[in-house]
Amino acid sequence: MKAAIIGGGVIGGGWAARFLLNGWDVALFDPDPEAERKIAEVLANARAALPAIYDRALPPEGRLSFAPSIAEAVADADWVQESVSERIDLKHKVYAEIAEALPERGFIASSTSGFKASDLAAKGAPVVVVHPFNPVYLLPLVELSGEATLRDKARPVIEAIGMYPLDLNVEIDAFIGNRLQEAVWREALWMLKDGIATTAEIDEAIRMGFGLRYAQMGLFETYRIAGGEAGMESYFAQFGPSLHWPWSKLTDVPDLDAALVKKISAQSEAQSGHRSIRELERLRDDNLVAILRGLRLSGSGAGGVVLAHEAGLPPLGERDGLPVTACRSVPVTWTDYNGHMNEAAYLELGTWATDALMQLIGADAGYVAAGKSFFTVDTRIRYLAETKRGERLEVTTQVLEGEGKKMKLFHRVYGESGALAATIETLLLHTDLTTRRACPPCAAVAQKLAALAQAHMTIPAPGAGGAVGQRN
Amino acid sequence: MKAAIIGGGVIGGGWAARFLLNGWDVALFDPDPEAERKIAEVLANARAALPAIYDRALPPEGRLSFAPSIAEAVADADWVQESVSERIDLKHKVYAEIAEALPERGFIASSTSGFKASDLAAKGAPVVVVHPFNPVYLLPLVELSGEATLRDKARPVIEAIGMYPLDLNVEIDAFIGNRLQEAVWREALWMLKDGIATTAEIDEAIRMGFGLRYAQMGLFETYRIAGGEAGMESYFAQFGPSLHWPWSKLTDVPDLDAALVKKISAQSEAQSGHRSIRELERLRDDNLVAILRGLRLSGSGAGGVVLAHEAGLPPLGERDGLPVTACRSVPVTWTDYNGHMNEAAYLELGTWATDALMQLIGADAGYVAAGKSFFTVDTRIRYLAETKRGERLEVTTQVLEGEGKKMKLFHRVYGESGALAATIETLLLHTDLTTRRACPPCAAVAQKLAALAQAHMTIPAPGAGGAVGQRN
Repeated sequence: MKAAIIGGGVIGGGWAARFLLNGWDVALFDPDPEAERKIAEVLANARAALPAIYDRALPPEGRLSFAPSIAEAVADADWVQESVSERIDLKHKVYAEIAEALPERGFIASSTSGFKASDLAAKGAPVVVVHPFNPVYLLPLVELSGEATLRDKARPVIEAIGMYPLDLNVEIDAFIGNRLQEAVWREALWMLKDGIATTAEIDEAIRMGFGLRYAQMGLFETYRIAGGEAGMESYFAQFGPSLHWPWSKLTDVPDLDAALVKKISAQSEAQSGHRSIRELERLRDDNLVAILRGLRLSGSGAGGVVLAHEAGLPPLGERDGLPVTACRSVPVTWTDYNGHMNEAAYLELGTWATDALMQLIGADAGYVAAGKSFFTVDTRIRYLAETKRGERLEVTTQVLEGEGKKMKLFHRVYGESGALAATIETLLLHTDLTTRRACPPCAAVAQKLAALAQAHMTIPAPGAGGAVGQRN
Repeated sequence: MKAAIIGGGVIGGGWAARFLLNGWDVALFDPDPEAERKIAEVLANARAALPAIYDRALPPEGRLSFAPSIAEAVADADWVQESVSERIDLKHKVYAEIAEALPERGFIASSTSGFKASDLAAKGAPVVVVHPFNPVYLLPLVELSGEATLRDKARPVIEAIGMYPLDLNVEIDAFIGNRLQEAVWREALWMLKDGIATTAEIDEAIRMGFGLRYAQMGLFETYRIAGGEAGMESYFAQFGPSLHWPWSKLTDVPDLDAALVKKISAQSEAQSGHRSIRELERLRDDNLVAILRGLRLSGSGAGGVVLAHEAGLPPLGERDGLPVTACRSVPVTWTDYNGHMNEAAYLELGTWATDALMQLIGADAGYVAAGKSFFTVDTRIRYLAETKRGERLEVTTQVLEGEGKKMKLFHRVYGESGALAATIETLLLHTDLTTRRACPPCAAVAQKLAALAQAHMTIPAPGAGGAVGQRN
């Protein structure tokens, strides 16, 4: 399949990447002499990101070519996506050129942010609005607006490249997403103009709060929950009057009369009524936990708040003469279809225990930043008991061996009952991060490691030293 | 430390949970006879969620008590949080009662969604706005508004319970977060009234698109990126005029004159100027990948789109006479501070390979739903070569043993160069999900497993069978 991409800016480049990574060939037309460089950069971003959200490989990447003219880009194309600047005269001019080269029964998909399909098609070209969101290669939303027969043709292609088509049966400028964003933008401009808040403060107000809810439920399902056990109706009772409160400078508001309330309640019931408020709360919380855990990785926004709070949490102690190297409850993200903690999560826990042990011997973040670390080369995990979501686990670490480049550790994972849930035996080699080769640790680290090995020598370690399946 | 929570609805209950789980004692006052049951339900949700976002244990939970009066709740409290209904007369009445019992130098933190602190404090009580977002036990944002001396007292407590205080130096109704949400609400009401979209369609337009951006960067940093290489100024050139376009029914807009443009550009520069647009794009993409991978777990919104697309991706084939049981690129969420794929991620990959092998022998989702599965009891991983972010990995699976309750597998993980990056030897026992005890598989599964074991018998498996650190 071949897609013609007309206009290679942020949006056109994103479309090109989305099609290519889903196995389509792409012919791109953009008169900008910088187009090739810009597309290459978007494509590099997309290659690092889009395949990462799937657990299976995408099809082999398609072939990218740069067409010298619109006609050559469009020839034999199965899809034509227009993403030129938001000027209707320019768009009409481009459509006339495309229309001449368009294969039979072909049509033009426009990325317009706000023009109505009927205005775009006013001069006779078969145009339908196929409006994506940036970055096009990651965000699924595509708004479809215009002639129903063209939307019917567009929908399966949008789904085939992993996107979510949202059909609009009524034509409206800026569709749904951009109308909502425009309202936020207008309100934010007032706050900036009035000196209430800065751009940074407004961004924090969004991403530390309601932005986290928008990412997984949107507006109405969130408000349904906010109403508590009484749901949407309780929400109206509490916040319906806000339309007449000075809560916004945007006061051209509709009348929230009984008919509108009834309409919204019925739609909300159809949308979410199959789940109780408690079920919705748990779904929301599971999603928020997953999002917050995801944001820990970069420390962005709410993820940074979590990391900062964690750094001040109580220190770990000792247990049975061994250092406690991890202590945490089982998050929902660690459970699987068998209704218990997944096997890989034990090793994640073991990784942190290893990190904590490294800190104890001075091989901490500063040591790693200076170019040395320990790399794991061999690990065995024995699973002894199931653990459940929310259960508090504690890990101790025994140094079995700590000489030269070698560090062999034995982690014991204890469940809430006190019983041993797993053991993890792991061999690491001290490594130079520049050469990526094994080398002896610095004297201070070697000394602390040897001291721990000495102190732990007399503690028996049943379960260590065997092969898979061997009981000992 | 003791917190007095006055009002035990959705917000008061969330505060109670946030304080309790951070080790504070909580005395709650709510005349509702259902209060105890409602708080218990919020607390159950919070216990399953808040500890899950940290990798270290929270302090031991505080003690929850239900006070028979405001005076008894407030006595000796280090923090007083008011979360009663949004009626100013009711709030004034409650404040008068609290003030009588307030410890010396104490003050009242109000959860109000919109009243100004000066209005709340109009009758003399020391009230400051400490406005959280639902669910209070998970979302970090707290807006502080009112007298500076009271905000100074409130801030460290808010930080100590893991939240993010956003200070407002100018008083304004509804603060920042609710003003922005109110604008969205007003625009959404127009769309519902005009029959443009349903509540479900509006929610999809948010959570499939810009909601995912709001969760990690907010508005202005997102628009800075949308401007492409030219940043915020390019954004204004493109979308500045939208204020005069019919993109919203909320037309009471400020004048976007040169002075306002300059102010916003300078603030955006101060906020994000230390990072290039390409760096911001990569940060955004890493965050979006983490969020989308998080949403896969529940299948909510964009996570469901990813799963649906994945189900249609090309099937896996064979390699060296063994079934290919996994094929994927290394997501950013799998990499660690050593600049390569983390040791635990190999096992996650191994888990999927095991799942794929189970599907091959008929132990699929339907089989698990019917009450039988395989549980891992022992696993050894040998790490042979480093793998990097974005690298495409392929896994084959050899059945070493497949008789009775036992299934022993040997996964080979190949890097992009074709070299072996790791081997995973794993022993599983067939298990009854009701009794949680080992039992023989059903005849069809046993037969398919035995056939694979037979077919793989002649293939050598160097690296299997040894103990940790043993070369073979």
